[in-house]
Amino acid sequence: MDPTSADDLAARVRRLEDESAIQRLIMSYGPAADAGLTSFAGGVWLEDGVYDWDAEAELLEGSAAVDEMLQGSGHQGLIARGVAHFAGPLLVDIDGDHGTALNYSLVMRREEGRFFLWRVSAVRWDVERHGSSWRVRRRTNRLLDETGAGRGLFGDSLREVFGQGPR
Amino acid sequence: MDPTSADDLAARVRRLEDESAIQRLIMSYGPAADAGLTSFAGGVWLEDGVYDWDAEAELLEGSAAVDEMLQGSGHQGLIARGVAHFAGPLLVDIDGDHGTALNYSLVMRREEGRFFLWRVSAVRWDVERHGSSWRVRRRTNRLLDETGAGRGLFGDSLREVFGQGPR
Amino acid sequence: MDPTSADDLAARVRRLEDESAIQRLIMSYGPAADAGLTSFAGGVWLEDGVYDWDAEAELLEGSAAVDEMLQGSGHQGLIARGVAHFAGPLLVDIDGDHGTALNYSLVMRREEGRFFLWRVSAVRWDVERHGSSWRVRRRTNRLLDETGAGRGLFGDSLREVFGQGPR
Repeated sequence: MDPTSADDLAARVRRLEDESAIQRLIMSYGPAADAGLTSFAGGVWLEDGVYDWDAEAELLEGSAAVDEMLQGSGHQGLIARGVAHFAGPLLVDIDGDHGTALNYSLVMRREEGRFFLWRVSAVRWDVERHGSSWRVRRRTNRLLDETGAGRGLFGDSLREVFGQGPR
Repeated sequence: MDPTSADDLAARVRRLEDESAIQRLIMSYGPAADAGLTSFAGGVWLEDGVYDWDAEAELLEGSAAVDEMLQGSGHQGLIARGVAHFAGPLLVDIDGDHGTALNYSLVMRREEGRFFLWRVSAVRWDVERHGSSWRVRRRTNRLLDETGAGRGLFGDSLREVFGQGPR
Repeated sequence: MDPTSADDLAARVRRLEDESAIQRLIMSYGPAADAGLTSFAGGVWLEDGVYDWDAEAELLEGSAAVDEMLQGSGHQGLIARGVAHFAGPLLVDIDGDHGTALNYSLVMRREEGRFFLWRVSAVRWDVERHGSSWRVRRRTNRLLDETGAGRGLFGDSLREVFGQGPR
């Protein structure tokens, strides 16, 4: 085994570890948000990261703003009645210290003794390496509804990041 | 580190990369289909791959047939009203240049301002290495309904690929 | 490449393989349970593993008890009408021969020709290395409902395993 191939192997392992770290980061948001661990959930973002959670809402700017939103009466009411902020499996692309992941977000709620699908969204996560870990630079959610907002987010992101077809 | 173990390590890394590539391939279908990127979505299949999407429907034979179906009025009507072709996490088995993955597919639609679960299916993906990437040889969907079709697909595939129990 | 770094690389690869093996283990339960492969599904647990499936129900103690539950009329009635025991992507932490994974479980059923969300739960999996594979020591499910049981399970587990925030 020459040094080049050893370095190459180490780089390939690092890439797999990056994918694992990004999955770990993203999959920690839902459980933390649903548990009411608002500071943990906010810490998924960079201090100056952005959560663009709906086309018609104001941006949440900074991890502290995410934390504050989760402490608010809207979110606290949801978790008191029962809610699941579920994140689906990731389609990830990594380029050095930056990564892009697409997935689906399902928010399920409970009302009158039954669970129901409340929001079904297209999600794009822009993540950055931050020392030995990864954090969210920007999360963008768009409903997969009749406005076409979710469709647009998935389409634009696939074309930008993944090109003309699967790799 | 002797050459044998370096080769062994490289083979283990390649296997992990294969799992990552298969996840990447399969997770690109839903976002592409829901965005209306029909050629991208069709390209998940081999040119002569098959999409056996329902026990009572005709097979879609070839990536071009998948592309054409997605361009049709049925699918276009779904995405205009809002739809999510969600794919769950994979149970993957790889044997050289062939792989088998099982997962759940949930198709969620929007109607009268609410999202609902339209189709819940068992899915089997037969994938093949194709140069430096992977493509779908055959995707088989069966509803997890009272017909027992989904149950049968999961049972037959688990017995065939995974044997008598978890590894 | 000196021996230390080769050993280090091998340890990093093993960790990634462990994550893959744990995903494989956990993702095999749903398809096996929904297919009625009761012994396969029970075999996801250690012989003396525990399935604590609901705050108000008795524990299932041992893989044979899981197998027996799945053979019972309750579960068999569900699969005859159509059911999906869906497991979401994992948030995994591994410490030597022990691992902890959190995810969401969605149980979807079919009734009068429509699918619906029946149970939405927080899940914690405590897994152990067992020779060359992994098995479940304990699976704990708690509904994400107005009782706060699911919220508590996610919160306690995140604090215990993942500390003050994402890594």
